[in-house]
Amino acid sequence: VTVSLVGAGPGDPELITVRGLDRVRRADVLIYDKLVATELAAEAPGLRISREGMTQEKVNSLLVAYGRRDLHVVRLKGGDPFVFGRGGEEALALVDAGIEFEVVPGVSSIAAVPGAANIPVTHRGLATGVVAVTARDRHGNGIDFARFAGMKETLLVFMGLDALPAIAAGLIAHGADAGTPAAVISRGTTPDQETVTAPLGQIASAAEALETPALLVVGDVVEVAQSLTRPRTLATAL
Amino acid sequence: VTVSLVGAGPGDPELITVRGLDRVRRADVLIYDKLVATELAAEAPGLRISREGMTQEKVNSLLVAYGRRDLHVVRLKGGDPFVFGRGGEEALALVDAGIEFEVVPGVSSIAAVPGAANIPVTHRGLATGVVAVTARDRHGNGIDFARFAGMKETLLVFMGLDALPAIAAGLIAHGADAGTPAAVISRGTTPDQETVTAPLGQIASAAEALETPALLVVGDVVEVAQSLTRPRTLATAL
Repeated sequence: VTVSLVGAGPGDPELITVRGLDRVRRADVLIYDKLVATELAAEAPGLRISREGMTQEKVNSLLVAYGRRDLHVVRLKGGDPFVFGRGGEEALALVDAGIEFEVVPGVSSIAAVPGAANIPVTHRGLATGVVAVTARDRHGNGIDFARFAGMKETLLVFMGLDALPAIAAGLIAHGADAGTPAAVISRGTTPDQETVTAPLGQIASAAEALETPALLVVGDVVEVAQSLTRPRTLATAL
Repeated sequence: VTVSLVGAGPGDPELITVRGLDRVRRADVLIYDKLVATELAAEAPGLRISREGMTQEKVNSLLVAYGRRDLHVVRLKGGDPFVFGRGGEEALALVDAGIEFEVVPGVSSIAAVPGAANIPVTHRGLATGVVAVTARDRHGNGIDFARFAGMKETLLVFMGLDALPAIAAGLIAHGADAGTPAAVISRGTTPDQETVTAPLGQIASAAEALETPALLVVGDVVEVAQSLTRPRTLATAL
């Protein structure tokens, strides 16, 4: 294998996989995302290249160029390479160039970021599944409001901070209850993590001051966090 | 922290997180799922208890009983504790008993199992998101066919091997194209992994001989695997 597409996990550097860390530690060339923890990038012994400011095409051509020189190239990506990560496009570029590659999955933010805020994305009696999508722009384009309003599954919207007012309004206009529990988790699993919880109708204004990256969670599972954060009975603790 | 709820990942033992492995290696008591790799369970130095055959209530009460004795208890679960893992219920039992706990996320099968079959669950131009649900019984109860037929998002159904005929028929009856690309991945990320690919209308018979655990993937992203498995151009390789 010449190129390893590795998921770094959701932010916390200890949440990379054992195999992923092994690959980083043997990298001749590391090409890493902006959101990857600096501690992780620092584990690579060879050349380190931040992809910040590069187009996807540039990243693909770098992977091919270094891969051709038979170096061990590690492409370290936030989360999992195949979840909103364009890892498929990088893999296709490598296949087209005849370069061997592997994919090392990572902990996706899908479960880890809500989990870090004590929200289980599925929970018996509350949600039997989960839907994860991205907001393409500040109007929430790309989100199928009609389909997602009133779902039994937990709804997660990635990269939707700018679009929060449009997303909440769109869901409510299509029949979602304005009282549906919602949360926004900013910089989940990192020391800067911040969580705001509010009914769907008020979540946009409640989360106004939060920083990117942020994840919107909509569904009854948000209420589990209250029980997990505060002991429900004091009797046994006394 | 007394009890750690740790995600072991999708099957391959090297896909546990660095923190997860650290917790297993310091466990006084390990309570592990049937699907956890034996190599991982073997890393625990103390008492090891398989949960096979135990009710969820029994697991909860064991966690509480050992947690009260101030031992470091590790509950090692397949995938991620908060994705179809009932980790939320275990966490609530610990909170009720006044016992401190942490959640260490794991690589969920949501992306890793399709990824091991070269299927990216999201891919530009093909799928802008992913829906993950479980089939509650062999009739596919719990699956909202009307909502999921003809979705732009990739559909993943966990624990649905017995229900495959009902799921495929249900989706098609609600308007899904019988030609929609589909795949079933059995024992993903392990040495026993097997993948079957067929149009939705034929996936149930194609996957008949597969073993559990198995994951159904429905959507255009299934076709990316063909390009990733076979080089698309030979020119550069010659």
